[in-house]
Amino acid sequence: MAYNGDIPESLSVWGDRKIADRLLGEMWGKRGVFTCTVANTMTSVRPGISDAGDTPDLTLFTPAADAELLVSGKTTCMKGIPINPGGIPTPATLTKAALELSGMPYYIVNGGTKIAPYVPYFDMGGECGRDITTGDSVSNVKASFEKGRMLGASLARGYDYIVVSESCAGGTTTALAVLMAMGTVKDNLVSSSSPNNPRELKTKTVMEGLDAAGIKPGDLRDDPLRAIECVGDPMMPANVGMIIGAAEAGIPAIIGGGTQMAAVMAAAVALEPSVQGRIFQGTTRWLMNDPNSSMVRLMGSISDRIPIVYVNMDYNKSPYEGLQAYEWGYIKEGVGCGGASVAAVIGSEGKITCDHILDRVHGIYRGIMGIQ
Amino acid sequence: MAYNGDIPESLSVWGDRKIADRLLGEMWGKRGVFTCTVANTMTSVRPGISDAGDTPDLTLFTPAADAELLVSGKTTCMKGIPINPGGIPTPATLTKAALELSGMPYYIVNGGTKIAPYVPYFDMGGECGRDITTGDSVSNVKASFEKGRMLGASLARGYDYIVVSESCAGGTTTALAVLMAMGTVKDNLVSSSSPNNPRELKTKTVMEGLDAAGIKPGDLRDDPLRAIECVGDPMMPANVGMIIGAAEAGIPAIIGGGTQMAAVMAAAVALEPSVQGRIFQGTTRWLMNDPNSSMVRLMGSISDRIPIVYVNMDYNKSPYEGLQAYEWGYIKEGVGCGGASVAAVIGSEGKITCDHILDRVHGIYRGIMGIQ
Repeated sequence: MAYNGDIPESLSVWGDRKIADRLLGEMWGKRGVFTCTVANTMTSVRPGISDAGDTPDLTLFTPAADAELLVSGKTTCMKGIPINPGGIPTPATLTKAALELSGMPYYIVNGGTKIAPYVPYFDMGGECGRDITTGDSVSNVKASFEKGRMLGASLARGYDYIVVSESCAGGTTTALAVLMAMGTVKDNLVSSSSPNNPRELKTKTVMEGLDAAGIKPGDLRDDPLRAIECVGDPMMPANVGMIIGAAEAGIPAIIGGGTQMAAVMAAAVALEPSVQGRIFQGTTRWLMNDPNSSMVRLMGSISDRIPIVYVNMDYNKSPYEGLQAYEWGYIKEGVGCGGASVAAVIGSEGKITCDHILDRVHGIYRGIMGIQ
Repeated sequence: MAYNGDIPESLSVWGDRKIADRLLGEMWGKRGVFTCTVANTMTSVRPGISDAGDTPDLTLFTPAADAELLVSGKTTCMKGIPINPGGIPTPATLTKAALELSGMPYYIVNGGTKIAPYVPYFDMGGECGRDITTGDSVSNVKASFEKGRMLGASLARGYDYIVVSESCAGGTTTALAVLMAMGTVKDNLVSSSSPNNPRELKTKTVMEGLDAAGIKPGDLRDDPLRAIECVGDPMMPANVGMIIGAAEAGIPAIIGGGTQMAAVMAAAVALEPSVQGRIFQGTTRWLMNDPNSSMVRLMGSISDRIPIVYVNMDYNKSPYEGLQAYEWGYIKEGVGCGGASVAAVIGSEGKITCDHILDRVHGIYRGIMGIQ
């Protein structure tokens, strides 16, 4: 059945409704492919920067473990699954639920990792990113970008649309740094996987990075790849390339993720303005409702032609505290959980709902926790 | 239109017709995916072993350049395209023609290379293979095999069948070595990309490798992964894994290639006998007609339940000497050119013919040679 303009209850739309409707119509019931680009930046081990791991050092294992969880159903690089301090499970649990229900094919892309996942992945020739306070954080940016572009085109041969997403601890800080270098934002609008967003620490770290690179906010407005090289992370050039490659090959993309992906979208728009109208952000209600960040203000600084479609997952209904914590400001996004959920609803023509996805999340959570 | 048992003129079948018909019926007009696993073995630089390159050293560049030619349409790792001595162009020209015509999606898999292709590829955690006369040729065999298995399952989520193939110079020698170690064959039945198959040199090299590994022919009948570790190449474990992973996930596979893939099939059958009935070899008329090798006798030693479907490409009709050379015993197979062509015919329900493919090969050849 063709899309008739009625957004299912499980989804909400912010921004340009006309573009959103056109893209939803193009994807409705069609064959999409989900990708998740994993990467590391040494920025994540700075104490206080990232909560995407039980300890700062463990944040380096989170992307690889997320990939392993999605592909092989168990983690190999570490014991247990990635958690935030306090035991809140990785959003990969939601991504996995959405992918299982939708049957959507998915691939891991390795942007550059310290810990490589024990699964097959698309190698983009990247390396683990250095701490952004070096002002010289990412190697092989141009090559990763070019390979991303080829990958976007390759995937377009087999699928009607693509979901691009990320697992990169420390990624909101690197995103803020790139957005500042490009002059997209002047304030710290990025989110955190903790309800206590360490905004001042992030801003201070970013300013150190810009100083070390010898650049002032806005200096790299027209050179996003250079901004990534100086203060970004290795997830970025691969994903920017994939978005542009897919658009060039004629298929639309869902940008799965939260404020981490704002830098990717800003870079893609700067390099290839025609991606506007061909992409929307796919994320979660949690991210949109975060009182400590503003995706809407961020997007306003990037483009008025990139709508946001978000999934109304509500873990208040969950009997498990580890999941209820998502309602208290923990996690919110990551591992493309929003994009995979939005795609599950779209791909099933609305037949898959938030309730179905929540049921599956519960099954996965019980399996992980050994709950009968 | 469903497959009615009439093989189109462009294809011929050898072996179990019932199995071939069942598999052809399952794939007819369906969505397949083509993969090519590139790898290097230092065996290929031994003078006289491989003609898959203008000089022994250049054979190391051939797999990467083939991958680049397929994905980005030009080579980055070397000038020009891979040629056999005398200027005969790589069979990737045929693979490319078939993939362009069929629109089939395709991915490069890196089993382990000395020269990595400048394209996105699935990394299998492998490394460039050592000379088989060390008796210790391939590292990370178990990991590559396990990742191959995951990749086969991943691809099965998105496609109805898979083509598995290879570009690995020196690969007929490593294939012979593994087949001898497993006791599949006692004689040298493998082919060569030269009409002057250096059979004695290959046999001698293989015997040196077996000696160095301390094994006698047939010792590793039940341990194909160990045979690959001792005297194989890094293309093998990834492809064996993919075949088994695809079969476990319920989709059939076309084994694209010539006698190099015999070792892969023998290993897959030994590890998982149930792949028989779920795969056929897809190759070329040139390989089947080779007077200096015997795919038919080789297959007879592996299984009586793996049919061969071959494409009746005929370069006698070509005005170009570089292509006519395929009729004089050069090249014959490689880069999955047979598998890609067979899949093009199957995927189009027979609408794509050898004549269409030849036209496209001519276009590609003229582009490469700068002929108006």
